[in-house]
Amino acid sequence: MKQESKIPYKIYLEESEMPTSWYNMRADMKNKPAPLLNPGTLKPMTFEELTGVFCDDLVRQELDDTTPYIEIPEEIRNFYRMYRPSPLVRAYCLEEKLQTPAKIYYKFEGNNTSGSHKLNSAIAQAYYAKKQGLKGVTTETGAGQWGTALSMACAYLGLDCKVYMVKVSYEQKPFRREVMRTYGASVTPSPSMETAVGRKILAEHPGTTGSLGCAISEAVEVATTNEGYRYVLGSVLNQVLLHQSVIGLESKAAMDKYGIVPDVIIGCAGGGSNLGGLIAPFMGEKLRGERDYRIIAVEPASCPSFTRGKFAYDFCDTGMICPLAKMYTLGSGFIPSPNHAGGLRFHGMSTILSQLYHDGLMEATSVEQTAVFEAAEQFARVEGILPAPESAHAIRVAMDEALKCKETGEEKTILFGLTGTGYFDLVAYEKFHDGEMSDYIPTDADLQKGFDGIPKFPGNEF
Amino acid sequence: MKQESKIPYKIYLEESEMPTSWYNMRADMKNKPAPLLNPGTLKPMTFEELTGVFCDDLVRQELDDTTPYIEIPEEIRNFYRMYRPSPLVRAYCLEEKLQTPAKIYYKFEGNNTSGSHKLNSAIAQAYYAKKQGLKGVTTETGAGQWGTALSMACAYLGLDCKVYMVKVSYEQKPFRREVMRTYGASVTPSPSMETAVGRKILAEHPGTTGSLGCAISEAVEVATTNEGYRYVLGSVLNQVLLHQSVIGLESKAAMDKYGIVPDVIIGCAGGGSNLGGLIAPFMGEKLRGERDYRIIAVEPASCPSFTRGKFAYDFCDTGMICPLAKMYTLGSGFIPSPNHAGGLRFHGMSTILSQLYHDGLMEATSVEQTAVFEAAEQFARVEGILPAPESAHAIRVAMDEALKCKETGEEKTILFGLTGTGYFDLVAYEKFHDGEMSDYIPTDADLQKGFDGIPKFPGNEF
Repeated sequence: MKQESKIPYKIYLEESEMPTSWYNMRADMKNKPAPLLNPGTLKPMTFEELTGVFCDDLVRQELDDTTPYIEIPEEIRNFYRMYRPSPLVRAYCLEEKLQTPAKIYYKFEGNNTSGSHKLNSAIAQAYYAKKQGLKGVTTETGAGQWGTALSMACAYLGLDCKVYMVKVSYEQKPFRREVMRTYGASVTPSPSMETAVGRKILAEHPGTTGSLGCAISEAVEVATTNEGYRYVLGSVLNQVLLHQSVIGLESKAAMDKYGIVPDVIIGCAGGGSNLGGLIAPFMGEKLRGERDYRIIAVEPASCPSFTRGKFAYDFCDTGMICPLAKMYTLGSGFIPSPNHAGGLRFHGMSTILSQLYHDGLMEATSVEQTAVFEAAEQFARVEGILPAPESAHAIRVAMDEALKCKETGEEKTILFGLTGTGYFDLVAYEKFHDGEMSDYIPTDADLQKGFDGIPKFPGNEF
Repeated sequence: MKQESKIPYKIYLEESEMPTSWYNMRADMKNKPAPLLNPGTLKPMTFEELTGVFCDDLVRQELDDTTPYIEIPEEIRNFYRMYRPSPLVRAYCLEEKLQTPAKIYYKFEGNNTSGSHKLNSAIAQAYYAKKQGLKGVTTETGAGQWGTALSMACAYLGLDCKVYMVKVSYEQKPFRREVMRTYGASVTPSPSMETAVGRKILAEHPGTTGSLGCAISEAVEVATTNEGYRYVLGSVLNQVLLHQSVIGLESKAAMDKYGIVPDVIIGCAGGGSNLGGLIAPFMGEKLRGERDYRIIAVEPASCPSFTRGKFAYDFCDTGMICPLAKMYTLGSGFIPSPNHAGGLRFHGMSTILSQLYHDGLMEATSVEQTAVFEAAEQFARVEGILPAPESAHAIRVAMDEALKCKETGEEKTILFGLTGTGYFDLVAYEKFHDGEMSDYIPTDADLQKGFDGIPKFPGNEF
């Protein structure tokens, strides 16, 4: 196995080198992401309106598109020290396996019990809820990573945590519930009969396997109808990308230590939390004209928001009780085929990333799931980490880029985000091993049904 | 949360500070561990006899009780760099939760996909098998950690891997099999009908849930009756403790960097691989009279080899086809109650540790499993890592020692081994949460049945 003498397998920052502020990409964007709209008035959501749903400090972060650096409170930095800095890994073994001249690095965010990067924002959101004197928070979870992360953060701070989990994931991942329970959270499969919106969805779509959009509606309803609760969300929102910037800031600091400059940066994208965090400081340089990077969002072919969606104002939830966000969307009624096992199931996309993509500052591509699991298995065997299927989307494209370098002889430096581990995705791995995994690409007609549900109003043409 | 200014939450060694040799405690022991005996002749097993079962280089290590340092081959050091150095963590959060003046450190070995320290010896054993030109290896696994680790190592080196998994674990841990399968291993629940010894055990004990002793017998039979295969074992053997010394060597190097000296060192003990590895360099200082440490082995009350077993020559396997080892043993026919969920199910104990315990160089204590899971949950909530039940035995005693310090006001420094993560133990966690977990302490009569099976011959009185 080759090893460049100066670059270790894993680059760890010292605690003293860890970021003390999050970076807010919006401050450097010429075209700011569009504001959230009140679906009743079609006016931008005000601070007062948003604080009915979200914690006050988080709303301030949500609305702030001018401050470039926002200090990370000391309590959050202390929590980060429990599992951060995360390693930036040089994939020497993968490079050797692929026989590529490319240099591959990945930022591994799975080295904590929640198993993913989601903990970075979970602790921040729980911290501000606690600071506001709340009793607890409600949320949705799809694959279960976000719910687990939030449970951990809430247990640490002594907050109540109510999780609505997409029914298909609840059934496919029986042990996810048990981890959340270890951390004291309550977990309800969604849609449920516990909420008005859940009952309505079940009446209209009996037997539905659920979606993130449904689960969001239920969690928001519970937060807004219970004293002392607010709703928190694990992706999509500006505040979440802000917190996740810690991934990119650490990656860049680690690379800077060794004078490494990535040519290509690759991340999987569901709602955009990991990708938005990973690329943040690099995109900042690009926005300020200091340096150029090629940035690639990878999404599942079965849920192709960027590559086949519309850039329009749409609901983030199926129940249509949330504000409207301008984003690449498949329509809030879109539900990925149940055969889709690899997470990244959300119908929309971060408004920040949507604007950046719209402005040509990043690319997007989609991949099919059997190819994703092939990459996952190959990666596991040589790099020793069983990746989450979500992360394996980025692995697939990173490997493809490295194989292109093999053809051209280019020594490109590739950085990708390894967002988490696949310990709770073994039902999906089993399907893959048994040859029972199939690919699914929605037809234009399938997508049109989702698009038909996007609200029509002046300025929202697509 | 308090933090001593100079000591970070996690101490990582640089790659250049990683051990380049394993440390062999036997070289410094005045009373050497007793040799393995041929059960037929009752003479010490020769190199030639042992190489029918084990790889040549591993037999050399097994028999070498004079060389203190044995170089780690470069290929193994490269593999170690994939997941090592592992962090030495200062448990600031746990200390605060317990309000103890004790300083608690743990060496976390779960930061790799196999989820435990077992990988340290798996890669070494697979490497020597590959070097010898073998086709593959056979082994047993109980909780599944060792089998997973060996599968990873074999996948990396392109060796075939046949795993016999204790039936009760196979059924309780359905996803363990899937991880091993991702790494290309075959996994058979033991006892099976595939081997003569398995068929014999099933005929005598229909409906048995299996034991490590049974699974070892099957794996040895397959290794010795198939061309190009050898048997490998994840614990108990001298060679395994040698490889696992990397845990203690890294721990000591990390502590030395900050001038930290532990007063108490605590590890869980099933066959002894983790404990023997963790304590190695500290015990070396103790054996050489350079410094004294209090060392505590923690075992389950339901499988109390050290605290209630006999120090005698016994079989390592149920089928009685393996050599005899002098160790603390409950008898090779002893099978822990099926209600025991927490690993550490082996009836015997490393001969090295047995000799050290017999010579009064270390202590042992046993704990009941509900108390162990209480500690596990408390630890998970404050330290953010879901521990393996095995590791939680050490957590329980470390917490108890820290609580004693709270009473006495002593600022002791405690080091314990956090051997792995509990992602595959959620059936056990679920039982604990549902109040369905019970404790079990074998009666003297229960133990006597096991003792009756220990072979009687001159010099083996107990």
